[in-house]
Amino acid sequence: MATTPPPSTPPTQPPPPARVASTGARPEPGTARAGSRPCSVADALSVVGEKYSLLVLREVFLGVRRFDAIARNTGAPRDILAARLRRLTEGGVLEKTLYSTRPARHEYHLTDAGRELEPVLHLLRQWGDRHLTDRPPITVEHSCGTGLDPILVCRTCGEPVTEGSCRVHFQLPGWTFAGAVPAQAPSDDRPAEA
Amino acid sequence: MATTPPPSTPPTQPPPPARVASTGARPEPGTARAGSRPCSVADALSVVGEKYSLLVLREVFLGVRRFDAIARNTGAPRDILAARLRRLTEGGVLEKTLYSTRPARHEYHLTDAGRELEPVLHLLRQWGDRHLTDRPPITVEHSCGTGLDPILVCRTCGEPVTEGSCRVHFQLPGWTFAGAVPAQAPSDDRPAEA
Repeated sequence: MATTPPPSTPPTQPPPPARVASTGARPEPGTARAGSRPCSVADALSVVGEKYSLLVLREVFLGVRRFDAIARNTGAPRDILAARLRRLTEGGVLEKTLYSTRPARHEYHLTDAGRELEPVLHLLRQWGDRHLTDRPPITVEHSCGTGLDPILVCRTCGEPVTEGSCRVHFQLPGWTFAGAVPAQAPSDDRPAEA
Repeated sequence: MATTPPPSTPPTQPPPPARVASTGARPEPGTARAGSRPCSVADALSVVGEKYSLLVLREVFLGVRRFDAIARNTGAPRDILAARLRRLTEGGVLEKTLYSTRPARHEYHLTDAGRELEPVLHLLRQWGDRHLTDRPPITVEHSCGTGLDPILVCRTCGEPVTEGSCRVHFQLPGWTFAGAVPAQAPSDDRPAEA
């Protein structure tokens, strides 16, 4: 980004975020296979889309910062948790600080970029509450005093982001709704799934 | 759910969703390990939180409905994609329809519950655009004519859902911010991660 947005921060305009990576490249090439759709959703998921990653963030949002407690509360196997914490730290979502030197022990804190993922957790919680349980184990109260029922709106007009209110534009040549245009599409003559 | 909310659907009040599962039980017990925090985020992720699951949804949102095209555009290995599609279908997010009988071929469509996950994709795209690329490969235009900059707000008061504007309440006895209270916590005397 060449310019920085103005620093004014009215209630509906949170401060612009710090850039985690500015290379324009995929943060983890292994996640985006050759021929797959270039997309910031895929890029984001390469940082937070592995199993347990978002549960780790849930714990840190709740104030649980240490490995053993995160492992217990997420149910993540310890080797997998170590890998997730490493990826989240490398990806600029968490930062690691030493809280004990003998032995060396670390705590994990959210970065500014990490805090921006809180709305994703609210939406997933809402979806799980709606569709997967009759008795939500955790409820969230908004500052207005009601049980939080979050909704995504357009920051400019304030209207809900609904199916049909958005139009997608592909910025890279050769990409359409269907995928890469035939000349650039990888050949694939394996049998289709039945 | 015993009652159905009234069918009025003003712009800020989308229709209530159909329940995917009403058992109150975890949809996939293997995901929620014994002792882990009961939470609808975890439940939701047991349906859509495996690697590639949300990319599969992205494709179906874009209108890509067939196995081969979804495989190509997500980069998902075919065996993993088959498992993800099965889980998303069993979890009530996608439904499978036959489009060819000889050989049998299927298309995948979003259910109402699946369509409710679109905001999650918008937030992940926004996060990836902000932090992981200088040139977003896909842009989204809202119906107001501006580039979509989504923000999560409280449906009741319309104010943003920000850090500090929410208070968490644990509805199950024995659970706190830290996790299960000691009497119920599983013992864990393995060495902590360094």
